[in-house]
Amino acid sequence: MNKNSSNTMALAPNTSNKRETVCIFGTGDFGRALGHKMIQSGYPVVYGSRSTQISNLIPKDAEVLGHAEAAQKAAIIIIAIQRQHYDFLIPLAEVLRGKVLVDISNNLKLNQYPESNAEHLAQLLPGSKVVKAFNTVSAWALQSGTLDASRQVFVCGDDVEAKQMVMNIVRALGLTPLDKGSLLAAQEIENYPLQLFPMWKFPIFLSLGLTAFFFFYCVALDIIYTYIYENNDFSFFIAITIPNRVCPVMALILLALVYLPGIFAAIIQLYRGTKYRRFPDWLDKWMLCRKQLGLIALAFASLHVVFTLVTPMRAFASWRTGKGIISQVLNNKTEPLDHTNAWLSDSYLALGILGFFLFVLLGITSLPSVSNNVNWREFRFVQSKLGYLALILCTAHTLVYGGKWFLSPSAYKWYLPNIYILSLIVPCAVLVVKFVLIFPCVDKPLTQIRQGWERNPKYSK
Amino acid sequence: MNKNSSNTMALAPNTSNKRETVCIFGTGDFGRALGHKMIQSGYPVVYGSRSTQISNLIPKDAEVLGHAEAAQKAAIIIIAIQRQHYDFLIPLAEVLRGKVLVDISNNLKLNQYPESNAEHLAQLLPGSKVVKAFNTVSAWALQSGTLDASRQVFVCGDDVEAKQMVMNIVRALGLTPLDKGSLLAAQEIENYPLQLFPMWKFPIFLSLGLTAFFFFYCVALDIIYTYIYENNDFSFFIAITIPNRVCPVMALILLALVYLPGIFAAIIQLYRGTKYRRFPDWLDKWMLCRKQLGLIALAFASLHVVFTLVTPMRAFASWRTGKGIISQVLNNKTEPLDHTNAWLSDSYLALGILGFFLFVLLGITSLPSVSNNVNWREFRFVQSKLGYLALILCTAHTLVYGGKWFLSPSAYKWYLPNIYILSLIVPCAVLVVKFVLIFPCVDKPLTQIRQGWERNPKYSK
Amino acid sequence: MNKNSSNTMALAPNTSNKRETVCIFGTGDFGRALGHKMIQSGYPVVYGSRSTQISNLIPKDAEVLGHAEAAQKAAIIIIAIQRQHYDFLIPLAEVLRGKVLVDISNNLKLNQYPESNAEHLAQLLPGSKVVKAFNTVSAWALQSGTLDASRQVFVCGDDVEAKQMVMNIVRALGLTPLDKGSLLAAQEIENYPLQLFPMWKFPIFLSLGLTAFFFFYCVALDIIYTYIYENNDFSFFIAITIPNRVCPVMALILLALVYLPGIFAAIIQLYRGTKYRRFPDWLDKWMLCRKQLGLIALAFASLHVVFTLVTPMRAFASWRTGKGIISQVLNNKTEPLDHTNAWLSDSYLALGILGFFLFVLLGITSLPSVSNNVNWREFRFVQSKLGYLALILCTAHTLVYGGKWFLSPSAYKWYLPNIYILSLIVPCAVLVVKFVLIFPCVDKPLTQIRQGWERNPKYSK
Repeated sequence: MNKNSSNTMALAPNTSNKRETVCIFGTGDFGRALGHKMIQSGYPVVYGSRSTQISNLIPKDAEVLGHAEAAQKAAIIIIAIQRQHYDFLIPLAEVLRGKVLVDISNNLKLNQYPESNAEHLAQLLPGSKVVKAFNTVSAWALQSGTLDASRQVFVCGDDVEAKQMVMNIVRALGLTPLDKGSLLAAQEIENYPLQLFPMWKFPIFLSLGLTAFFFFYCVALDIIYTYIYENNDFSFFIAITIPNRVCPVMALILLALVYLPGIFAAIIQLYRGTKYRRFPDWLDKWMLCRKQLGLIALAFASLHVVFTLVTPMRAFASWRTGKGIISQVLNNKTEPLDHTNAWLSDSYLALGILGFFLFVLLGITSLPSVSNNVNWREFRFVQSKLGYLALILCTAHTLVYGGKWFLSPSAYKWYLPNIYILSLIVPCAVLVVKFVLIFPCVDKPLTQIRQGWERNPKYSK
Repeated sequence: MNKNSSNTMALAPNTSNKRETVCIFGTGDFGRALGHKMIQSGYPVVYGSRSTQISNLIPKDAEVLGHAEAAQKAAIIIIAIQRQHYDFLIPLAEVLRGKVLVDISNNLKLNQYPESNAEHLAQLLPGSKVVKAFNTVSAWALQSGTLDASRQVFVCGDDVEAKQMVMNIVRALGLTPLDKGSLLAAQEIENYPLQLFPMWKFPIFLSLGLTAFFFFYCVALDIIYTYIYENNDFSFFIAITIPNRVCPVMALILLALVYLPGIFAAIIQLYRGTKYRRFPDWLDKWMLCRKQLGLIALAFASLHVVFTLVTPMRAFASWRTGKGIISQVLNNKTEPLDHTNAWLSDSYLALGILGFFLFVLLGITSLPSVSNNVNWREFRFVQSKLGYLALILCTAHTLVYGGKWFLSPSAYKWYLPNIYILSLIVPCAVLVVKFVLIFPCVDKPLTQIRQGWERNPKYSK
Repeated sequence: MNKNSSNTMALAPNTSNKRETVCIFGTGDFGRALGHKMIQSGYPVVYGSRSTQISNLIPKDAEVLGHAEAAQKAAIIIIAIQRQHYDFLIPLAEVLRGKVLVDISNNLKLNQYPESNAEHLAQLLPGSKVVKAFNTVSAWALQSGTLDASRQVFVCGDDVEAKQMVMNIVRALGLTPLDKGSLLAAQEIENYPLQLFPMWKFPIFLSLGLTAFFFFYCVALDIIYTYIYENNDFSFFIAITIPNRVCPVMALILLALVYLPGIFAAIIQLYRGTKYRRFPDWLDKWMLCRKQLGLIALAFASLHVVFTLVTPMRAFASWRTGKGIISQVLNNKTEPLDHTNAWLSDSYLALGILGFFLFVLLGITSLPSVSNNVNWREFRFVQSKLGYLALILCTAHTLVYGGKWFLSPSAYKWYLPNIYILSLIVPCAVLVVKFVLIFPCVDKPLTQIRQGWERNPKYSK
């Protein structure tokens, strides 16, 4: 193929207008959209169709023939028909022998059939070279030319040359081919466009649930309680004050939940004395969504930062400032600077800023293009060392900020603790256990286990 | 080639110092810079030149021979001469037969010649294997070793093995080759280094124009009007107050302009009853620069956030706060908290924060490495659903903030509306029409049209 | 191989469960972890081991045979043993002829041996096809299934088909292969996992050193001096006030240090009259870490922004505001707005905001995925033009902010200048020299030199 194509190129008077004919089986929406785009990119297109009368729907520069005649005109045939009609291709096996068949089909749900559509096609027509491609591209985007989304086209197939030919077409259409290996990858490629953030589902539902709980907890304590017992209407707290109480709590808890499964894993390995047994399913799943949990925690932390920074702009805040100053004036005394207070206020602000700064660093290193440029050792350093440092700083920030209320009885409305106190349970537990785990007497056997040593080989059976 | 090279490797005593000789035709700046770099990377380099006397300019470890002798010494020949001198290669056709010729040339303007330089070279020397490469690399960057910029080298060519050989050299120089397919891609590769943000031009000029208009509009109303009629000098408003009025207005209008072409497209499709006719040119271009418009809108929104947050640090703000409190004290009364005001102020802040948060999310998903990792369905979800939600929140933020001035006659200086009111026209229009478009009686035919159905097939002729 | 594999595929009843047997030599930790993972991905695994008695440690679905028998069962043999034991493979040369040997070894330090382990293996067994792969993957991550880090597996080898086979396995394990070319790249691949941010070392140590110096300088002047001479305890300044003095100073100096080496390079080239001589080593190294210096400067600038924005939340700030207002009230007078002050305060805030905005833009364009999508001309425009504009704005921000203290003797405690003044030295020097360099009489010869012209050819010898 290489030799042929390079010769053709070299002899052609103006190579940039000379492309090989492509055949498309099927005149459905995607077949038409792809044909339109290919004609625009300079490919002669011939459609294979049951009825050869020229339909208005088909791009007007394309030829329409019967399936067999159309297939003979091209080396590449795009199969733009649904899997359940693949059987009609069997009588054409002889015509399609040695041709490149491009399977572009999608299913309606994940793992709908035992084997992928492309593998099914390859079994029906063993003499043809099946390549899976284009199924992740939207017909509407192709048609309107507005491919804002990913321009990546996943391509897989067992024949390297056939794959190269398809990848050249992909490039000519202005898209980026991505070789995913042999046809075994077709199942994954067919499942890909059906997903909607699969890894994000659990973290998002967990966050929504916790957020709702803490929100109503705060509404009860800060608005309803105040309204009933102090007869003050603070309903406007719903807009900023309460979100700014829920966000930091969520950020801290979710950040701790990122490091909790690692703690569980270490304890399980220490208990079992081996690393060669699988973790329980819930722990496996938890570990796989740590990145998502961390990013949601970062989102909450960012909201907390902005909610905090707008405080001086609030009508409530300027009213409160004014009230404080006026009461000082009316009492005719100037309060001196309270040094303890100045220390506390500056400390928790500084701790929060540094914690947030490290948190943002962690977020940046989890961008795909950044994490692809660091090796395993560097990634571990950032995500583990800097991550724990961020957790320590954020926990300290909360402790210093909320510390003064822990022992004050007025903080326990309806005998319920303030949410600061609730938010500290998980992070403190994680930090305490982690502190125990880095003691040499615990760390040494754990390191050995992770390097493959087994305390009790019977477990590994 | 594979067999040969692996044998050579296996037999050589220290393979890492053993590289194949490369020939460079032309001793101009780029030829010399590339030669320097190749010698540093361990390649023996031989120059082909008209005058074989050793020039001082040529790297001292390189050999200099006549063109024919130099070409015979190497399998790869880098053609570092300008396109208009390619003719002198024709007499060398026999020597160059079967060799890999690397075309590194660039043109002075886009699409200067009907066919690319590399294709022109391939036509002149049909017996050689032409590969396009290195034209996107700067000679100065190669020379100084400071390749901070993209290390990507686009490579295209019709012969797969020739391309592999060139890509190996690219890797050995510490650069990253990117296979762009057959020689048909050469035109695009040659145009690439001549561009300066082509997609950004229209959005940036539009933004500059609108910004200038709104800036002078504000200067007229807020500074000149106040100076003439109230005799107050607020010229320092130019630094922060007015930019902080222009930025949110620009952000909101540009964000609405991102969604406006989609509205137009839907209306045109509904009117025509088909998706198989091209949109007008202006709409096509507009749709292609939506991402850029959105990112510029995000930049304005970010500036608005920072300009707003620094407010309490301004001398003017602390003077105004003090004045307010002192007037309360001198009147000897403490104003109670205005609950309506507290609600309004907290609401527009919260709406703005949430809108900005979604806006930043949209910005992050448009980073190339992130958008490459989401499929079409996920991208649509984020850019369409979350995008409209951001537009709704930002419009509501502006409405709640500016609402109280709409009906107040004092807001109409010189009978001109405040820019808040101007800024709301486009977003409100977009939201209203979008609201109509999602009614089932309108949405259903539109969905059918986008799936390929045609109301009136005569249009598609 | 292509033909074989595609036939096998087409004939197999359910191809997705049919994978080729892989042999692993060595039952150490990594060999076991890789075996586990391969069995999970559907590969039959056979271990080659000295003792063929089935160990408990080996995955229970794997076969264990002697080395020769195991090797005969598979086309791909993974060599999971250490380099110093490679010699024992020599007697197996005949069995291993034509097989694909995957070298997964790592060394303990950078460039430990003159040639890479993979090249060493290829020399020992010239009849086998050696491919380097998997050495950058962590056994622990493979085992626990938590590959949060980079999923990239660098692959290199001289035989293209052997490389394809290994890359297919990599993909089947859920990882992303990255072709790094011929076996010459093995040295680099083996060094890769041993690095810990090598380019960041110098910039980070420099920043830490400078930060410590400025921090103690400020502690001395702002806390100790005040305590001794004014008997005021401002020790709480350590948390926010002093960090917020050090951060902007560091950001400005580091940003200037990004542009300083370019200035030196221009002067050296002007003096030498040629670009064809290498820069001194220190300048080369400096130029290579400019990106890192810039990003650290951006981190300091971001901290400065957040530290500044929290100011109104500090107990100290509200105490000071209250004190100011109360003193006005007690003196029974309202101060009018100081227009000069309002201008100055708004100007330095606006300059700082715009400078920071450009700085963030520079940071975003240095993300790998963004800088890969811009060409050399665009990158130069952003990093050079916008970068200098950011430096000018930030320097102006500092000048306007600190200007009033330059000539005031009270700013010189212990006859030492304030750190504002220190921080301005480098950026002002850079800007002044750059201003001289863009004069036509200097710029013209420099441009000629960079295009390859030489004033005095004797230098290039």
